[in-house]
Amino acid sequence: MSTNVLVWSEFLHEKRDARVRSIYPDGMHEAIARGLREADDFVVRTATLGEPEHGLTQEALDVTDVLIWWGHIAHNAVEDEVVERVCRRVLDGMGLIVLHSALMSKIFMKLMGTTCDIKWRDVGEKERLWVVQPSHPIAAGLGEYIEIGAEEMYGEFFDVPPPEQLIFVSWFAGGEVFRSGMTWTRGRGKIFYFRPGHETFPTYFNPEVRRVIANAAHYVAQPGGAAPKFGNHKPLEKLALDN
Amino acid sequence: MSTNVLVWSEFLHEKRDARVRSIYPDGMHEAIARGLREADDFVVRTATLGEPEHGLTQEALDVTDVLIWWGHIAHNAVEDEVVERVCRRVLDGMGLIVLHSALMSKIFMKLMGTTCDIKWRDVGEKERLWVVQPSHPIAAGLGEYIEIGAEEMYGEFFDVPPPEQLIFVSWFAGGEVFRSGMTWTRGRGKIFYFRPGHETFPTYFNPEVRRVIANAAHYVAQPGGAAPKFGNHKPLEKLALDN
Amino acid sequence: MSTNVLVWSEFLHEKRDARVRSIYPDGMHEAIARGLREADDFVVRTATLGEPEHGLTQEALDVTDVLIWWGHIAHNAVEDEVVERVCRRVLDGMGLIVLHSALMSKIFMKLMGTTCDIKWRDVGEKERLWVVQPSHPIAAGLGEYIEIGAEEMYGEFFDVPPPEQLIFVSWFAGGEVFRSGMTWTRGRGKIFYFRPGHETFPTYFNPEVRRVIANAAHYVAQPGGAAPKFGNHKPLEKLALDN
Amino acid sequence: MSTNVLVWSEFLHEKRDARVRSIYPDGMHEAIARGLREADDFVVRTATLGEPEHGLTQEALDVTDVLIWWGHIAHNAVEDEVVERVCRRVLDGMGLIVLHSALMSKIFMKLMGTTCDIKWRDVGEKERLWVVQPSHPIAAGLGEYIEIGAEEMYGEFFDVPPPEQLIFVSWFAGGEVFRSGMTWTRGRGKIFYFRPGHETFPTYFNPEVRRVIANAAHYVAQPGGAAPKFGNHKPLEKLALDN
Repeated sequence: MSTNVLVWSEFLHEKRDARVRSIYPDGMHEAIARGLREADDFVVRTATLGEPEHGLTQEALDVTDVLIWWGHIAHNAVEDEVVERVCRRVLDGMGLIVLHSALMSKIFMKLMGTTCDIKWRDVGEKERLWVVQPSHPIAAGLGEYIEIGAEEMYGEFFDVPPPEQLIFVSWFAGGEVFRSGMTWTRGRGKIFYFRPGHETFPTYFNPEVRRVIANAAHYVAQPGGAAPKFGNHKPLEKLALDN
Repeated sequence: MSTNVLVWSEFLHEKRDARVRSIYPDGMHEAIARGLREADDFVVRTATLGEPEHGLTQEALDVTDVLIWWGHIAHNAVEDEVVERVCRRVLDGMGLIVLHSALMSKIFMKLMGTTCDIKWRDVGEKERLWVVQPSHPIAAGLGEYIEIGAEEMYGEFFDVPPPEQLIFVSWFAGGEVFRSGMTWTRGRGKIFYFRPGHETFPTYFNPEVRRVIANAAHYVAQPGGAAPKFGNHKPLEKLALDN
Repeated sequence: MSTNVLVWSEFLHEKRDARVRSIYPDGMHEAIARGLREADDFVVRTATLGEPEHGLTQEALDVTDVLIWWGHIAHNAVEDEVVERVCRRVLDGMGLIVLHSALMSKIFMKLMGTTCDIKWRDVGEKERLWVVQPSHPIAAGLGEYIEIGAEEMYGEFFDVPPPEQLIFVSWFAGGEVFRSGMTWTRGRGKIFYFRPGHETFPTYFNPEVRRVIANAAHYVAQPGGAAPKFGNHKPLEKLALDN
Repeated sequence: MSTNVLVWSEFLHEKRDARVRSIYPDGMHEAIARGLREADDFVVRTATLGEPEHGLTQEALDVTDVLIWWGHIAHNAVEDEVVERVCRRVLDGMGLIVLHSALMSKIFMKLMGTTCDIKWRDVGEKERLWVVQPSHPIAAGLGEYIEIGAEEMYGEFFDVPPPEQLIFVSWFAGGEVFRSGMTWTRGRGKIFYFRPGHETFPTYFNPEVRRVIANAAHYVAQPGGAAPKFGNHKPLEKLALDN
């Protein structure tokens, strides 16, 4: 049974900035989607901000096991109603992978309950993502670290709740560290945040970055238990009589 | 240096329901406040829904180390602006203790990012809160469990993110369990949820329940490190030249 | 690629106690193994205390992805050298599932660093294992709880480190609770403890218990990242020159 | 009520190596002890490897709230019986602070259940310890990071169980990161590991390093709940009859 992945991105930088377009001529979402298609038997679709309902209709979400989100300059352009819809699907079990600057997307901030703010510096410096939980399946197939020659820097404090699992910690040449790969649970949904991917670098063509995203898609897609029932609840004795 | 605690409650049941009034003639907030005053050298104030800005002005919050919240039937009557203000103070370091039915308050749901929903049954059954992390200072002075002769039942699944620390697990006579004492971090703020305290039972006069609330007030009030700075950040070399 | 599971048990009660033999005529390990074989395409072998090196030779462990351990009355009969060998394989990435009374096995105590002690009562009372993390793949296919009509009681405090993931909490008719399904990481190995399975009850024929064990075998078998290198380490500049 | 702290170290480098002696003429334990005495109203004693029973008699441990441990070249010279004794006291509630190279001490490895191995490089490079949990009282009074001009490097993977709280992450000039401040619970005891402190650098005179150690002593000293009872346990009904 294939995993259905929906890759969402703003698709704005690519239209406005020739440098970005030269790296991602088909859009960042297509580069991410291609990485997934080549990695495994995922069924991958894409959606972008400019589509009706941003391409995130109830019908689209209902058949999505994993939603991947990239955004940067248009977080506020995402309709609140769509954010609510995505949020409900995550709580109901859809996996969510949040990439790079999507840390300040409405959906991520809402699920975290914090500002999700960071330090940053965009000079294209060396980043090393060290694996600090090598037991984790998201690290499968990697070496001890991923090195990216030039990326935007993100620095601590990263204002998110302490993660349930911390998988990567980034070192930056300029003197900062960052918790770059983290998981959280919300309702029946699993969330993975992964740091790399500034639009002016070809990060989403990096084979190790692609490996992490594919591993994470498998991880957050894993089905869990039954949907809980809430509300007034009969005691054991009564249940025993009824059954 | 004393810890400043602000006890907030709806103060509605006590006015509308003679049974509740007979238990808490001065309001539930006063019973909770008295427990704190008798426990230690806290400076304790109270505030209720009916006051201007619900008694939660910026000035009031600015001098508050720990906010204790009890609500049940009027969650939606709390102004969104006040919820935002409380949320900012928690992220900035104010401790928050959320009691019983306040699990569906706007402020708690916002900080958790989930529905916070539960199972419940109000027949006045026996509850035992077992200590499952005896190393924790919130359990100081307690035995192995707290027994409450009659309380409302809350049952799992409790739709909150997995806690950072799980201190109490409740057993209910009717067949359910509940994670009854949990902590989370949001920003620089520490949050403690504590289950007992339905308005129709004299739970907030129970010496062990009072002990837990006093312990928790000390715990969430502990000051942390510096307020993080966010935004564009100079690299190490530049800093070195500047300093 | 199939997952190789090795089911280990003492195989002593079954020989000494007619009641146990009547429930598990081929041994508890065979009942557990059969559950796995019927659940999925696992390759399942068994080993018992009485075999040379307890059936846990280096060769046997080297081809094992997941080791399942049941023990009760003969923990001390397990050779320290074998315990060391199993421990090394766990740290190197072999999954470990520890069942019921195996909580006081040498291998589990060594990996936990605590006494692993509990309360207990063997009167055959009702147990309900509530799912408190429905997002977890170990809960897949289950309802909101598993009910077992008669089991031995285990009660808190269970002296293990706070788990990384808490999946099940048991309710017992006599008044206790227990953290019944928990995971921890040690080195590159994943560990799952699962409470039910006293030798005088047919628990390992229960379809839901079998489902949990099969789910857990998949979970702890998931491969992680590269084996870390330790020791003296060259700086980045030197590495750059070398590469 | 003052907190009783016992600072233990090998006290070998200082006798054998003139460079170390010039930095720590009274021994590293005395530098650490002095930092505590100046920080707060701790009652501080010291003990060293060469004393009878390494200065860690049952009597000494019984009056100790917090044990601080520094070791490097003589881990194996610590008697197993003493390690067992210290371990029992930690499980019974004594706080433990493990410094720098003490990560490979018998007591820490025993409590962790892992190899505790690391990468290292001793060239005296710049280290920055970033605060990644500013809510934590161990970070109180600090800025966003601690900078140490020259220290030994420790690099990931650090083979310990994922911490319950991650407070500091170190950046090293040579390209590595390290989880430098972490807490774990074992039994009723709280454990804090803190990275800095190679014997050839004056790290334990650094005011911020001293602040962290003092904060941590308060943190791990916090008393918890009652000592759990283990073993055969009567059901609720029976208890009700008896009481």
